[in-house]
Amino acid sequence: MASSEGNKLWGGRFVGNTDPIMEKFNASIAYDQRMWEADVKGSKAYVKALQKAGLVTQNEMEQILTGLDKVFDEWSKGEFKIKPGDEDIHTANERRLKEFIGDPAGKLHTGRSRNDQVATDTRLWLRDAINTLKELALQLISTMVERAAVEIEILCPGYTHMQRAQPIRWSHWILSHAVALSRDVERLEDIRKHVNVMPLGSGAIAGNPFNIDRELLRQVCLTECVCVYFWTAEFLFWASMCLTHLSKMAEDLILYSTKEFSFITLTDAYSTGSSLMPQKKNADSLELIRSKAGRVFGRCAGFLMTLKGLPSTYNKDLQEDKEAMFDTYDTVHAVLQVATGVISTLKVNQPAMEGALSPDMLATDLAYHLVRKGMPFREAHSCAGKAVYIAESKNIHLSQITVEDLQTVSPLFDKDVSSVWDYNRSVEQYSAPGGTARSSVTAQIEHFRTWLQAQKQKP
Amino acid sequence: MASSEGNKLWGGRFVGNTDPIMEKFNASIAYDQRMWEADVKGSKAYVKALQKAGLVTQNEMEQILTGLDKVFDEWSKGEFKIKPGDEDIHTANERRLKEFIGDPAGKLHTGRSRNDQVATDTRLWLRDAINTLKELALQLISTMVERAAVEIEILCPGYTHMQRAQPIRWSHWILSHAVALSRDVERLEDIRKHVNVMPLGSGAIAGNPFNIDRELLRQVCLTECVCVYFWTAEFLFWASMCLTHLSKMAEDLILYSTKEFSFITLTDAYSTGSSLMPQKKNADSLELIRSKAGRVFGRCAGFLMTLKGLPSTYNKDLQEDKEAMFDTYDTVHAVLQVATGVISTLKVNQPAMEGALSPDMLATDLAYHLVRKGMPFREAHSCAGKAVYIAESKNIHLSQITVEDLQTVSPLFDKDVSSVWDYNRSVEQYSAPGGTARSSVTAQIEHFRTWLQAQKQKP
Amino acid sequence: MASSEGNKLWGGRFVGNTDPIMEKFNASIAYDQRMWEADVKGSKAYVKALQKAGLVTQNEMEQILTGLDKVFDEWSKGEFKIKPGDEDIHTANERRLKEFIGDPAGKLHTGRSRNDQVATDTRLWLRDAINTLKELALQLISTMVERAAVEIEILCPGYTHMQRAQPIRWSHWILSHAVALSRDVERLEDIRKHVNVMPLGSGAIAGNPFNIDRELLRQVCLTECVCVYFWTAEFLFWASMCLTHLSKMAEDLILYSTKEFSFITLTDAYSTGSSLMPQKKNADSLELIRSKAGRVFGRCAGFLMTLKGLPSTYNKDLQEDKEAMFDTYDTVHAVLQVATGVISTLKVNQPAMEGALSPDMLATDLAYHLVRKGMPFREAHSCAGKAVYIAESKNIHLSQITVEDLQTVSPLFDKDVSSVWDYNRSVEQYSAPGGTARSSVTAQIEHFRTWLQAQKQKP
Amino acid sequence: MASSEGNKLWGGRFVGNTDPIMEKFNASIAYDQRMWEADVKGSKAYVKALQKAGLVTQNEMEQILTGLDKVFDEWSKGEFKIKPGDEDIHTANERRLKEFIGDPAGKLHTGRSRNDQVATDTRLWLRDAINTLKELALQLISTMVERAAVEIEILCPGYTHMQRAQPIRWSHWILSHAVALSRDVERLEDIRKHVNVMPLGSGAIAGNPFNIDRELLRQVCLTECVCVYFWTAEFLFWASMCLTHLSKMAEDLILYSTKEFSFITLTDAYSTGSSLMPQKKNADSLELIRSKAGRVFGRCAGFLMTLKGLPSTYNKDLQEDKEAMFDTYDTVHAVLQVATGVISTLKVNQPAMEGALSPDMLATDLAYHLVRKGMPFREAHSCAGKAVYIAESKNIHLSQITVEDLQTVSPLFDKDVSSVWDYNRSVEQYSAPGGTARSSVTAQIEHFRTWLQAQKQKP
Repeated sequence: MASSEGNKLWGGRFVGNTDPIMEKFNASIAYDQRMWEADVKGSKAYVKALQKAGLVTQNEMEQILTGLDKVFDEWSKGEFKIKPGDEDIHTANERRLKEFIGDPAGKLHTGRSRNDQVATDTRLWLRDAINTLKELALQLISTMVERAAVEIEILCPGYTHMQRAQPIRWSHWILSHAVALSRDVERLEDIRKHVNVMPLGSGAIAGNPFNIDRELLRQVCLTECVCVYFWTAEFLFWASMCLTHLSKMAEDLILYSTKEFSFITLTDAYSTGSSLMPQKKNADSLELIRSKAGRVFGRCAGFLMTLKGLPSTYNKDLQEDKEAMFDTYDTVHAVLQVATGVISTLKVNQPAMEGALSPDMLATDLAYHLVRKGMPFREAHSCAGKAVYIAESKNIHLSQITVEDLQTVSPLFDKDVSSVWDYNRSVEQYSAPGGTARSSVTAQIEHFRTWLQAQKQKP
Repeated sequence: MASSEGNKLWGGRFVGNTDPIMEKFNASIAYDQRMWEADVKGSKAYVKALQKAGLVTQNEMEQILTGLDKVFDEWSKGEFKIKPGDEDIHTANERRLKEFIGDPAGKLHTGRSRNDQVATDTRLWLRDAINTLKELALQLISTMVERAAVEIEILCPGYTHMQRAQPIRWSHWILSHAVALSRDVERLEDIRKHVNVMPLGSGAIAGNPFNIDRELLRQVCLTECVCVYFWTAEFLFWASMCLTHLSKMAEDLILYSTKEFSFITLTDAYSTGSSLMPQKKNADSLELIRSKAGRVFGRCAGFLMTLKGLPSTYNKDLQEDKEAMFDTYDTVHAVLQVATGVISTLKVNQPAMEGALSPDMLATDLAYHLVRKGMPFREAHSCAGKAVYIAESKNIHLSQITVEDLQTVSPLFDKDVSSVWDYNRSVEQYSAPGGTARSSVTAQIEHFRTWLQAQKQKP
Repeated sequence: MASSEGNKLWGGRFVGNTDPIMEKFNASIAYDQRMWEADVKGSKAYVKALQKAGLVTQNEMEQILTGLDKVFDEWSKGEFKIKPGDEDIHTANERRLKEFIGDPAGKLHTGRSRNDQVATDTRLWLRDAINTLKELALQLISTMVERAAVEIEILCPGYTHMQRAQPIRWSHWILSHAVALSRDVERLEDIRKHVNVMPLGSGAIAGNPFNIDRELLRQVCLTECVCVYFWTAEFLFWASMCLTHLSKMAEDLILYSTKEFSFITLTDAYSTGSSLMPQKKNADSLELIRSKAGRVFGRCAGFLMTLKGLPSTYNKDLQEDKEAMFDTYDTVHAVLQVATGVISTLKVNQPAMEGALSPDMLATDLAYHLVRKGMPFREAHSCAGKAVYIAESKNIHLSQITVEDLQTVSPLFDKDVSSVWDYNRSVEQYSAPGGTARSSVTAQIEHFRTWLQAQKQKP
Repeated sequence: MASSEGNKLWGGRFVGNTDPIMEKFNASIAYDQRMWEADVKGSKAYVKALQKAGLVTQNEMEQILTGLDKVFDEWSKGEFKIKPGDEDIHTANERRLKEFIGDPAGKLHTGRSRNDQVATDTRLWLRDAINTLKELALQLISTMVERAAVEIEILCPGYTHMQRAQPIRWSHWILSHAVALSRDVERLEDIRKHVNVMPLGSGAIAGNPFNIDRELLRQVCLTECVCVYFWTAEFLFWASMCLTHLSKMAEDLILYSTKEFSFITLTDAYSTGSSLMPQKKNADSLELIRSKAGRVFGRCAGFLMTLKGLPSTYNKDLQEDKEAMFDTYDTVHAVLQVATGVISTLKVNQPAMEGALSPDMLATDLAYHLVRKGMPFREAHSCAGKAVYIAESKNIHLSQITVEDLQTVSPLFDKDVSSVWDYNRSVEQYSAPGGTARSSVTAQIEHFRTWLQAQKQKP
């Protein structure tokens, strides 16, 4: 009481019965309305379960279903009006249902809490989101695979540590990113599986006291509100990994599009100019792709930090999941589309790629040449190193060292060393699965085509 | 060329000259329009510098200034219309300026790049944002300090490890959070100082080739576009720290508002009920405050991850800074306001607080009692521990042990031990600065009042 | 050259041919020696493949195998001596092998790079690590399940928003955490599956040019060095999620062990005292568990930030994976063990738990009572709310309101309302799977026992 | 009791009075022994304050001081033996002190808790750490500045978006990184200032009840244990920012050391070879520098996540600060040293740098040429763009377009356009502070020399 009077003394600002800032701080309708479809669908399934359990009559159920259809209609036509007091999508939809059908609307919430609804809605929404992202990822992979098929003849340097390492096929580079993405697709399937798996049990708090048909609920209405936050976290991390993969691809392509590399040119649709420098053409699309790994991982980090140390069950802190999930979905959605656009339209500068091959990139082959003649690899590696040194000292190409000079390094060298200096032969020798030989790359392309076919036919 | 034709073969989707997804992905107008005021102000200062440097005439300058005023007017009346092609706020404002005044508008961009403008706009915007947040933080501190002054008589348990430790004044608890916040305010000042400091030099790339008056520019238009990303990062981290402090305060208050503690009651304005359980009253406001530390730190983490490994100068990746900055500002803004509301209106349950004090919380005082009689602290600590054990064994309060029993622990115990069992006396003995004595708390309150006064008078 | 001479002018410190700081900065032997066993095993498999491919003779293979066994022996006896120049475990082992068997050692590295070895070693190490952590997690779950079985009779409040919500069984609380952990175990299985799956192809760079039996390599030696970093990232995130789950459990238990709750007491083995306050007993074990979610997630965040924007293939940056992986493994290992110790030894204060139940926690049951009489839930929820208000106004328990007073709220109330005020009956009504009824909890316990059995029998 | 007996039933593993895993989990001695020096120094100051307050006699003080000197000696000679039970550095030192001087040792802890000691030790340690890192950063900056002075004649392309933008001086690039580092040094000063500032008050819990001379304590022994965690967090973030700056520099240099750029060559001391490819020379030192921004930020993220949502005052969770702080310090320490080594020894390939300049990089100058003749910049930018297009169409350099052709773009073009095609003239026109003109760069170098001098003379 003393405290209450004291308000006047210490109250920094007027705070009446309703603090509008608090109301806005608390409300989630601004973003969770995005789940309107899932919310209506979940309620439709739930009322059927209530009828089976004898908690609503056949007639009430029909009224509720009809009313929910009207709510659905309004949303799909963009005519649904949010009203003050609609703090979340569940409240909004139930309020509107009541306006349509009156009292029976009040029975819909029997035996469920908003936490149950949030879980159900998120589950349904996330399932659809996963399906969409999977499709986009498959489209990107498919674009990569078909490009790899068409451009299989083009050779280019393979890099490690950003240094020229060995000659590879350009298609091999493309497919290495398709491999990473294909694993992302498979991990996305794992998450979808988790979203579908019924946990071993244990409701939000006490469970549901009515004989609601759990098998029916399993389809759409879970009461295990806790799990949903972990699906969200998994999804956010998945997105972080997927965009980290794409940040690598973007980094490669940004490099390849510098003047110094000049391996590729982006079409104008995926570049922008400078407001200051007339000659500039910047790979903005790729830079944006590279940047988004940060954004999305930030969402993941933020949400995990929010989860840390929370007590069990629902706490309002968990409301943070939605915006993170929506923003992440939108970001990955855009990145996959733009990446598909970039990959399908970039132009390859084959002469520049092949011009960047140099005989020193065959130094490993030179060592292998000696290995095939029986020299232990360590010694062969050392001999090839000495040859590299000779070439550098004489300022000539590795391929230009005379056989005589090579023989000072190892007597095993002979005229047949000339066979080493052939980039095509070099890539062709890697004929194991995943190698750079034409046959390996072709096999991998076929593998992908089959896999893509299988993925598209999955439910 | 082959590649170009090949598009039809591998093109996943149609990609024409303009890919609308790319356009949206690239554009920042959706959020950077928020800096319209800073952008117009920056341009007004810049055109004055151009005139001084002889790059625009007096007349052109006047036309441009008048035109910019019209642009300003439209924004402030909410009448500015974004058009297709307005990819960012700079483009939009210059486009509109040209519609107003024609050709002279084309002179405004002389010698500056959009990067310069972004840097300038962000600088101006951030300076205002810092001022606003500082005011809100001062209001919260002021509310705390005045509440601490009014409720100085109330004692409550002080906790460490969530275990009752020693009796303290409730005001002491309040002020401990005010201390943390006051340091946040001082750190915010540091950031403002950084934003104002002219770096040692080194422009975006080459600098500005015209004799633009750098002293004038220093006021509003910096060319050092790189620094701005580090101000942003610093601001994001500041916000993370500030909200981490408030997450601690929120956690304490959530605990204190449990049934088990019952130390405080939130007003209805800052609580919400349950859609399922009619008796529930949840401290949603505090849970939301607690959660936001995660959200904001996620933004910081995301932005730093985006920065990592970028090459020097501007890269499009840096565009990620704006949304992070705006969202963080809005979040801290709301949190400070809601926290002020919560602190100014919560009700303290004095009987519950004081009922939670128990004699075992004076065990340290019992040890100090022996120390004052000459016993080394380690030994005194051990003796007090034994007394605690005796009380537990006999299932009585520590204060109820007889002097005889105490003397079995140490012969130094005497009748005067009874003076120990007084919570008021206990808190009064801590009279050093920062202590729990009435005089210490009062001094701290006075210190804060002076400090607040000084802060408010700063420019 | 000018630059070289210039060194004297600008060289901050002497930098000769070998900078010892750089050597230490570069070397990984300090931590990657931990994978010695995996490294030796991988090499043994690899040399067999070399022999099949005709790259080493039967005799050389035998020498190498014998030599590797000696290396293995030294490590297992703790007698292996790291020498200067052993920059990583692969170099160290090959160096030692050469000391044992001479030249043939030089053939072991034919056709593989250290990146291949790192990938193989990590793969093998991680597989073992996953198995160990899985066992520890199962032990913790098993402890929980058996404790839940023994203490099934104990009721306590269930909380949402840290506010008393509904009565539940203590076992129900335990099992809710077992559920979360069981899903962690299943996710760990997913990661093990990924570690075992052969990617679609695409080697580090070009692949392996010898006819190494890939089916054999599949067992132990993968050349796909890229994937390994994503396994590591997945593992780090898994650990973050698992410890976030346990941070929730720890937070609950810390709360329950406060004086104010007094639901549980930790044994001395898992508590510590204060160096200052003799009466203190702190739940340090639980606080440490709570803290480790942060530590481990920091490792995950750091590693993903390191990965972001890297170009394809191996870059030295990737060396960061090992310490993150080892530290995370050690942390999760310790947390699971300590959590098992805490759960198996804490003492439950049944009277305190049951004393914390109060009739207002049955307000939902009061509403359901009306629902069973045909009232729509929304209306029933509102009637129960009014009853709560009456009780608060009269300062009596909800169960003490007279039937007459209840009838002013709804005429449906009758004498049979008295049946509501029974906590046992309340928990018993939730008999669906996952509910609080004895039968539900028992079923869940049985489910877990079966599941644990099945898990233990998996390969 | 029932529970206790029940242990046998559900106990997953034996847990006696002391669980060795818990002991290890709890102990911090493994890493906090690193603060032995700060701990001894802090205790020496504290005992003097105790004597002033009359809590120890002159004689006891002297004994304690002598004993502490012996402890100090043992540590500095590496002879201090950690014993079982020494759970942290404070316990270890006090234990050893007691062995040396007996009972008076027990008086040292009067009126302080281990939290106070941790705070004091960390404060002292961090102050030294900051000083050391500052020195190393100054050394790196100094190396950069002197290198910039020597190589001021060398021109190279300036890049934005990794695309060639405008010609700059190589020294200008170097100094742009020195600027970022100099701001890091200034921020480090801010943190040192925070570490030194006495907070407004408010002790850990109740404060200190004896008349300990707070002015003396201010020097070395603070009781405000809370602040220390925020200093640590600030330090971790500072390190993240500093290494993010260096990750940018590393990324630039990695690019510049590719075959494609060939602008610089690292000395062998900072490069490593490949175990597979004999010709490879990798910029491992730079890749490691780039990677560490992730590692350090992970520590920062982890620690903030640990802090989030903790209740006030000390909780054991806070123990996480030390390892994060030490690892971060060691990492930054090594990075600064290696970066100094790299910068002081790398070789610049001047012909390659200057060969990379091309006339299209002067397109902005071409536009400015028109601006100087009175054309609005927007129009001039467009004209220069057209000229670029003409050059590309004719496949000639921009400088090779005839005046006639240029006049089709704008009649303002004249013979004097030839003055544009001079890279030296181009960089010389940017003579404002921070520009690329020799005078600007020289001024900046002088500025830095003065600033370095001033920094080195600071206390």
